[in-house]
Amino acid sequence: MIPKGFRAAAVEAQMRYKNRLDLGLIVADEFQASAGVFTQNVSQAAPVVWSKNRIGQGRAILVNAGQANAQTGRGAGDRCLQSAKAVADLLSLEADDILLASTGVIGQPLNIEALTQAVPSLVKNLATDGFADFSKAILTTDTVTKTAETVIPFESGPPAVIWGAAKGSGMIAPNMATMLAFVLTDAAVEPKLLRSMLAQTAETTFNRVTVDGDTSTNDSLFILASGAARPQVITGGPEADIFKKALHKVLGSLARQIVRDGEGATHLVEVKVRGARTQEEALLAARTVAQSPLVKTAFFGEDANWGRILAALGRSGADFEPYRVDIDIDDLAWIRHGLVFGRDMDATAAMKKREYCLTINLNNGPGQDQMLTCDFSYDYVKINGSYRS
Amino acid sequence: MIPKGFRAAAVEAQMRYKNRLDLGLIVADEFQASAGVFTQNVSQAAPVVWSKNRIGQGRAILVNAGQANAQTGRGAGDRCLQSAKAVADLLSLEADDILLASTGVIGQPLNIEALTQAVPSLVKNLATDGFADFSKAILTTDTVTKTAETVIPFESGPPAVIWGAAKGSGMIAPNMATMLAFVLTDAAVEPKLLRSMLAQTAETTFNRVTVDGDTSTNDSLFILASGAARPQVITGGPEADIFKKALHKVLGSLARQIVRDGEGATHLVEVKVRGARTQEEALLAARTVAQSPLVKTAFFGEDANWGRILAALGRSGADFEPYRVDIDIDDLAWIRHGLVFGRDMDATAAMKKREYCLTINLNNGPGQDQMLTCDFSYDYVKINGSYRS
Repeated sequence: MIPKGFRAAAVEAQMRYKNRLDLGLIVADEFQASAGVFTQNVSQAAPVVWSKNRIGQGRAILVNAGQANAQTGRGAGDRCLQSAKAVADLLSLEADDILLASTGVIGQPLNIEALTQAVPSLVKNLATDGFADFSKAILTTDTVTKTAETVIPFESGPPAVIWGAAKGSGMIAPNMATMLAFVLTDAAVEPKLLRSMLAQTAETTFNRVTVDGDTSTNDSLFILASGAARPQVITGGPEADIFKKALHKVLGSLARQIVRDGEGATHLVEVKVRGARTQEEALLAARTVAQSPLVKTAFFGEDANWGRILAALGRSGADFEPYRVDIDIDDLAWIRHGLVFGRDMDATAAMKKREYCLTINLNNGPGQDQMLTCDFSYDYVKINGSYRS
Repeated sequence: MIPKGFRAAAVEAQMRYKNRLDLGLIVADEFQASAGVFTQNVSQAAPVVWSKNRIGQGRAILVNAGQANAQTGRGAGDRCLQSAKAVADLLSLEADDILLASTGVIGQPLNIEALTQAVPSLVKNLATDGFADFSKAILTTDTVTKTAETVIPFESGPPAVIWGAAKGSGMIAPNMATMLAFVLTDAAVEPKLLRSMLAQTAETTFNRVTVDGDTSTNDSLFILASGAARPQVITGGPEADIFKKALHKVLGSLARQIVRDGEGATHLVEVKVRGARTQEEALLAARTVAQSPLVKTAFFGEDANWGRILAALGRSGADFEPYRVDIDIDDLAWIRHGLVFGRDMDATAAMKKREYCLTINLNNGPGQDQMLTCDFSYDYVKINGSYRS
């Protein structure tokens, strides 16, 4: 169920990986608007800088996997221009119409020769059924492709859909950089509104997941709107709310798939904090628990080690009274008033599930927020300790 | 070289561990002053609360290993009183003269029966040569005892020494809680001055080490001064500076021993940040690098993976220009202007050393600070993933 007005393709450019799809392209043949959200890291990859300056006008996205084109020195910008120009010329577009995204090793110069050589066949392959290949071409340490789609349930007028593909084995993978997401819709949305809805939705989806608490130099989230199915431009009101809910559904699904595929992950855990003094403190508490190496190794060990959760909450900066804390694992009442209430063996059994929810109630106010995280396993150390060797 | 005026002892109380020293006692037969620094965690163990209220008066310290007496409910305070009273009665002291420290599993009620049963033989064993046993009795996941001592190089007057023992496999160990240090001197220091010098020195030593960035519910640092060797009370001036330098030497050595014995650690790395805009930003940068799971797994993999260091610096909150960053490994010029300068193989060779120093120059100001850290190994996951099973 790909939105109308788009084509995609992927090829084996052999830029760094051998014999696998590593270069992808999406083009909006019909184009209405584009928006993006980019990494907050002080060190920003060249393609991030390039795309930030062209988002809104950009209607095609060129993505390579294997080389992040981050910290690659003065030449990096030129290589971005060459890449964009190579694609633009064959599509009779301007270089400024081409958005760029890279993911891979930081500090390795982009293999521009291999890239430009591959562009002609890439453009030639563009097709409305090229999105499966595209979803493969953007992967690095990912073990599975990650896509999501939904029909936007507008109450009237022509139907439209949202489709998205993402890659990422966590907020940061072994010096790979990292989270990329590409979202398409054939609805039309007023550009400023599209930008704000994308930013707000990213905040409650992608910005609520963690594998190791790091932030990469390349994180980029793009949305392209073609208006091909539903040309009337959404400017606000109930239609905007409906669109935003659908967008949240797609981004939320992609974010969840990223954590589920987190490096070495064997469990996916939703850490919900309730009863914090404020939403900010709820997020602090959820983030600290979700990122604590001790809590994450306990998830891996399926060890009902609640003392670690209390200790993490206690250093989070959230204000609470330890003897008022309640914790549930799914529907098991585990901790009540800061002490064990449920049976240890029941908690251990609950933690054997592949995915579960930890609900922490600080009983200190109305604030709530949550984080999606995964466990810390031997394989995380293996993948990250020996990645380049 | 134990300071004059103190005795120590240890016994096998079998509170949780079997057939190993797990209960220790230090008494100042001559007593001049005491001071302490305690965990900032919102969740504070009962012995921490007890000792905070008695530090200054307290002249004896009872320590048990295996049970943290943290999050153990209403009974916890009573058990502290019973423990203190059991010791005080046999020493003809008040319960308020006894300081308490516990380390071990959070949430397990203190085995007060075993403790009180063991106290008589513990007090009977008190001896000026009991400090080696004491240093053993306070360990949990530690693999070695940690002690340090120095002669205070006063320019005149009678000599005096500082001795210390510590335990801790990092700022936090598998739901063990965690860092304890006991420092003795036979000099005499005006109590308020002793308190401030201890706090300032802890800030530049114990508060500059990390294994996993956590803060425990039981962290406690005590100093007892007997004045037995040098009764004239230090109230300031050059003598205070000399004492503080000696204190820094002892605490710094203990802190370093704690990181060297960090759980699963195979490397000890000093992360020095120079050229930050302010000291605060230097500490932010050093802390973020020293705690990044990706950087620490690279240390473990002996992988010269500088992109991860740049990425960690970039999210640290410190202000800098990525292409002005220089990084050295010991005396190897590794990164210059944000790009590789030294040979990758030289950097990899340097990272094979058991201990080395990473010097990061942001070239953006006068601010500097540092952190001591260790690497993230399979054994960290093993120890913390399966601790209770």
